[in-house]
Amino acid sequence: MLRHEMNLRVRYSETDQMGTFYNSRALEWFECARTETLRSGGVTYAQMEARGVLLPLVEAHLQYLGRARYDDLLCLRTEVQFSGKARLRFDITITQANDGKVIVEGYTVHAITDAAGKPMRPPEWLRQEMGS
Amino acid sequence: MLRHEMNLRVRYSETDQMGTFYNSRALEWFECARTETLRSGGVTYAQMEARGVLLPLVEAHLQYLGRARYDDLLCLRTEVQFSGKARLRFDITITQANDGKVIVEGYTVHAITDAAGKPMRPPEWLRQEMGS
Amino acid sequence: MLRHEMNLRVRYSETDQMGTFYNSRALEWFECARTETLRSGGVTYAQMEARGVLLPLVEAHLQYLGRARYDDLLCLRTEVQFSGKARLRFDITITQANDGKVIVEGYTVHAITDAAGKPMRPPEWLRQEMGS
Amino acid sequence: MLRHEMNLRVRYSETDQMGTFYNSRALEWFECARTETLRSGGVTYAQMEARGVLLPLVEAHLQYLGRARYDDLLCLRTEVQFSGKARLRFDITITQANDGKVIVEGYTVHAITDAAGKPMRPPEWLRQEMGS
Repeated sequence: MLRHEMNLRVRYSETDQMGTFYNSRALEWFECARTETLRSGGVTYAQMEARGVLLPLVEAHLQYLGRARYDDLLCLRTEVQFSGKARLRFDITITQANDGKVIVEGYTVHAITDAAGKPMRPPEWLRQEMGS
Repeated sequence: MLRHEMNLRVRYSETDQMGTFYNSRALEWFECARTETLRSGGVTYAQMEARGVLLPLVEAHLQYLGRARYDDLLCLRTEVQFSGKARLRFDITITQANDGKVIVEGYTVHAITDAAGKPMRPPEWLRQEMGS
Repeated sequence: MLRHEMNLRVRYSETDQMGTFYNSRALEWFECARTETLRSGGVTYAQMEARGVLLPLVEAHLQYLGRARYDDLLCLRTEVQFSGKARLRFDITITQANDGKVIVEGYTVHAITDAAGKPMRPPEWLRQEMGS
Repeated sequence: MLRHEMNLRVRYSETDQMGTFYNSRALEWFECARTETLRSGGVTYAQMEARGVLLPLVEAHLQYLGRARYDDLLCLRTEVQFSGKARLRFDITITQANDGKVIVEGYTVHAITDAAGKPMRPPEWLRQEMGS
């Protein structure tokens, strides 16, 4: 398992007329969390793509538990691990950085495929990155 | 239960460098499906907000099952019904309009609240709109 | 010159906390206008890309003149013509469909390139599509 | 005049099927540049809104001069100054952080209004923030 924590500010473009963030932005923030988690593990997702290993999203689940406004500083906590033989699962919690209030909890499941989209066993360097 | 079906084209802005739609767009398409489903039921979501009834998203689940490219014509099929006493659940399937291949399946669950965000029992006109 | 007119509804995801559309959405709507204008001319942009002719954006100008809210029905009027030897210019006006009030006026200028990004003279079918 | 410089990484959600960033993202990055520039000046835009001073966008101009890919680190350089009596103009250049190659050059012009949208003279604290 690989763990990571990062901060991110809510952009004006991510708000909607309810005054909080629009719901689909959470999936974009999840992607930022995945990108920085993999970077922290030693092989960035850009490098993985260049090596011909893709992680297409196959499932996402989100629970919306709190509000976040423009310019709020958020904290994204990520845990990633293998799920079955050819999948990765990222569990992500987004909180307000100042008071720890939970905004979104969820997970994404990703296939591990070659550049042609064919499922593959995770290569050795990916196993090492995941600490297994 | 209220059922609805509509078409929608993939915008260029909705693609990503994998050549298919970016994953968070599915939640935006789900919102288009909800908007048109409620319109077909007789009270639009804009009218609901004007009447002080909001449907904030509390949970979303998505399964990504196929690809869709720029300018592909998609079909969005929606079923909406009450879930418990103060929630609505939209089940949505997105397929390719030409061959019926499934792209995304998922659901969203919404609280029913007043303008201040306080949960409320669904008003009579909303029960009628849902056909119950 | 090729002219086109279409309607489009403001999505909830396109609003921001000011209650009107977020400014960058206008560029996404301009793209919808370009897509449908080229379709009306007989060769869609998807077909152009498949033929190895790309129209990368090189310049955009936008004037924000009015408000548009969630679910407002907009009218997009487009005029497209050659600009110099290897460029296309789209002039687009977005109005409220019901009262004609102007929301955004602007233009985008596009290079005409091959699949490798090298500028090229417009092929004969593109000249015909532009009515010149 | 107030000057500011910041870095920002291209998100996967900001790419399109051409493999570079989608054009409307530049307006979203411009907004990030404005937000951080005003923060560096001492009064954040969130604080300005809370004080009843808004900066609605009235004009934008963008020149697209280079490519940027997923995970590229960009540098955003901003200069902001008064334009006429009741407007602010932000001139922004986006470059690749590693080699300085220019990606986008442009500006945005903003009205200075009260919470009701009525144009107003810039308050003294805003003049001070602009260094004038």
